[in-house]
Amino acid sequence: MLQLFVKDETNALSAGQLEKALADAVPLLDACRAGHAQYADSLGWLRVEEWAGEQKRAEIKALAQSIRRKADAFVLIGVGGSNNAARAVLRALDPAGPTQVLWAGNTLSAWEFNRLLEQLEGRQVYIDCVAKNFETLEPGSAFRVLRQYLKKRYGEEEAARRILCTGTPGSQLDALCSREGYAFLPFPPNIGGRFTALSGVHLLPMAVAGVDIDELARGAAAMEQQLRTQPAGENIALRYAVLRWLYGRKGYKAEMLSAFEPRLAGFFQWWQQLFAESEGKQGKGLLPVTGEYSEQLHSLGQFVQEGTPLLFETFLDVKEPGAKDSLVIGGTDVADGFGYLGGKDFWQVNRASFEATRAAHSQVLPCLTLAMDRLDAFHMGQLFYFFAFACYLSAELLGVNPFDQPGVEAYKQRMFRALGR
Amino acid sequence: MLQLFVKDETNALSAGQLEKALADAVPLLDACRAGHAQYADSLGWLRVEEWAGEQKRAEIKALAQSIRRKADAFVLIGVGGSNNAARAVLRALDPAGPTQVLWAGNTLSAWEFNRLLEQLEGRQVYIDCVAKNFETLEPGSAFRVLRQYLKKRYGEEEAARRILCTGTPGSQLDALCSREGYAFLPFPPNIGGRFTALSGVHLLPMAVAGVDIDELARGAAAMEQQLRTQPAGENIALRYAVLRWLYGRKGYKAEMLSAFEPRLAGFFQWWQQLFAESEGKQGKGLLPVTGEYSEQLHSLGQFVQEGTPLLFETFLDVKEPGAKDSLVIGGTDVADGFGYLGGKDFWQVNRASFEATRAAHSQVLPCLTLAMDRLDAFHMGQLFYFFAFACYLSAELLGVNPFDQPGVEAYKQRMFRALGR
Repeated sequence: MLQLFVKDETNALSAGQLEKALADAVPLLDACRAGHAQYADSLGWLRVEEWAGEQKRAEIKALAQSIRRKADAFVLIGVGGSNNAARAVLRALDPAGPTQVLWAGNTLSAWEFNRLLEQLEGRQVYIDCVAKNFETLEPGSAFRVLRQYLKKRYGEEEAARRILCTGTPGSQLDALCSREGYAFLPFPPNIGGRFTALSGVHLLPMAVAGVDIDELARGAAAMEQQLRTQPAGENIALRYAVLRWLYGRKGYKAEMLSAFEPRLAGFFQWWQQLFAESEGKQGKGLLPVTGEYSEQLHSLGQFVQEGTPLLFETFLDVKEPGAKDSLVIGGTDVADGFGYLGGKDFWQVNRASFEATRAAHSQVLPCLTLAMDRLDAFHMGQLFYFFAFACYLSAELLGVNPFDQPGVEAYKQRMFRALGR
Repeated sequence: MLQLFVKDETNALSAGQLEKALADAVPLLDACRAGHAQYADSLGWLRVEEWAGEQKRAEIKALAQSIRRKADAFVLIGVGGSNNAARAVLRALDPAGPTQVLWAGNTLSAWEFNRLLEQLEGRQVYIDCVAKNFETLEPGSAFRVLRQYLKKRYGEEEAARRILCTGTPGSQLDALCSREGYAFLPFPPNIGGRFTALSGVHLLPMAVAGVDIDELARGAAAMEQQLRTQPAGENIALRYAVLRWLYGRKGYKAEMLSAFEPRLAGFFQWWQQLFAESEGKQGKGLLPVTGEYSEQLHSLGQFVQEGTPLLFETFLDVKEPGAKDSLVIGGTDVADGFGYLGGKDFWQVNRASFEATRAAHSQVLPCLTLAMDRLDAFHMGQLFYFFAFACYLSAELLGVNPFDQPGVEAYKQRMFRALGR
């Protein structure tokens, strides 16, 4: 299970301050556990069973299996809440499978799109267009181009068999699927995009790539059980949310999520969206930034240690190596100044780097650690649920609606006008 | 040439404030142009001619050509200032060539390293270990493993012919090369890592990959000419540095560098290191963050528009499309709600998204635009020189040493102790 630690030699919080804030937040925890009535249409993720239960998973796995038998390239068209969670898991776990998931509809760059089209040459292509509200430009334009591509390559009828859409029942996308004969999966009506990690939206592409989605759901359900029933004093989501809130009030206006595994970079993007969109309103919220260590110790490290003091840091710590996480540093045959590394494993050296970094950073800024046993589907499920629940609490502490994103309308309206919509 | 614009409907600066600060900074500009004596050992980048002149480029191109004839995989071992600039250019320009450059020594993740080793199978491998001070763990350990790999695969003699090192003459790396018979290139002694974009450190891997380094140097030299001779009032590096400084004093403690081309993501990393390490000291500096648009409009956009007001934004704008930047959005055959896009080019839609985003963001935060005509080697050279010179000015305005990075010692010393060095 996940564990949360604080390491802060600056003593940013005075004695008893955290315990008092935790006690004050108990009613809020209870309300969130029960599910605020005003957010009823956004809390479908709260019970993992609702959208990732056994029956739903069985359907998803069956569909995924049929796609895996036919496709070697599965293009997921989607942006933000429609692709970040699946991409995070595939980047972290790199499942071996016959079907590779590729990404489209997340940019308006023709250059990127042309690269994608090159990668599709000679492969058996299937696509899934994911869009809760089918109004977003990136997936809309990408789906147009890829529909044409499939029709041209396979003919109208066969193209239709290779197209799947995930959207809101009754939407324009649903109507399009009916007219054209595309398969259609319902987007959970009671979850906003960034909270849909544990639903078919993301479980399908994960399963297509070969991820064990049962394990992912099992991890999330275990975390749900813990966060929704544990005594408040032991609740790590409440503790994390309250710590963030207190640090924010102390003037730490940015949170850096850091990890020593580059394959967590996709997860970082999911986390950034979750907190930036849920909290960044009414002039509030912490700027979510990320540290891809050890590489970015050689770029951002200087600023973290000695720059403007506006960061606190949360480390994602993976405690045990996986099958591919080991490699011994040999080469003791010549003097190169690195004799002290001889015979050590990269895993061990990487952990020494982590421990030293946390020790150094905690001298000058508050450092949290969220530790997991292994980087696998079970723990990815735990992370998704943990952060979703903590973010809900965190936005409630700030007094903002966790589930809307009114600020993105400002550029969208200007853009739609400019494009003559 | 590059152009710099301000768009700020918030009027963060009062009338005349910028002009006064620019006038006050003229002596500083003059001093930087002449080269501060106390930084004499760090200003080798100031004259492009010194490390990227015609003679040096001819030698680099000849060496690159000989590598291109033999290698199809060229592994650059390096981190931070030893790989960011080259990686930025290769990601942005994606040159076609027989030789692919791969990256190592920028992480301690065994998982990443094992992936690299898989990619080397069946290919003709050459390596370049780049390390100004050969004490950094990531390149040191990676070089050990790759040396062993080459020896095992090709035998001792042939392995030695495939190894090149770039380091400081007289260093332990130099001695290793002499003993083992590896080729050795000098790292410019009068430039710190993050300022070495226009030197053999980066020009060699760029040339190996097929980048026109003459064009890159030509762009940088043109920018040098402009920044070192233009009247202060027209000097865009001074203007950029002074604007950053004024915004920082106004409470904008983070600068977001944004662009609508995903292939500038590598450049973002170079820029982050440049400013984080040069400015982030003595409790000063702007936190450098990045916006990979349009994708991150769907993650960070909400925070930028309505979150805690600590950001100002600098857009990198590419004005004209390149050969692969065009793709028409057809698909007018069915009603999908995107009829207004029919017949438009992605380039055009992407620019509409940029214009709308800047218009929306400039309502609530100061927005700068650094515009370039095209995304090519010439303009990449311009960008490197522009930001290096502006960063030098910027650190001088803050009153910090632009060329040191004392803060990274804190974790390094702890790590070396833990590893028994």
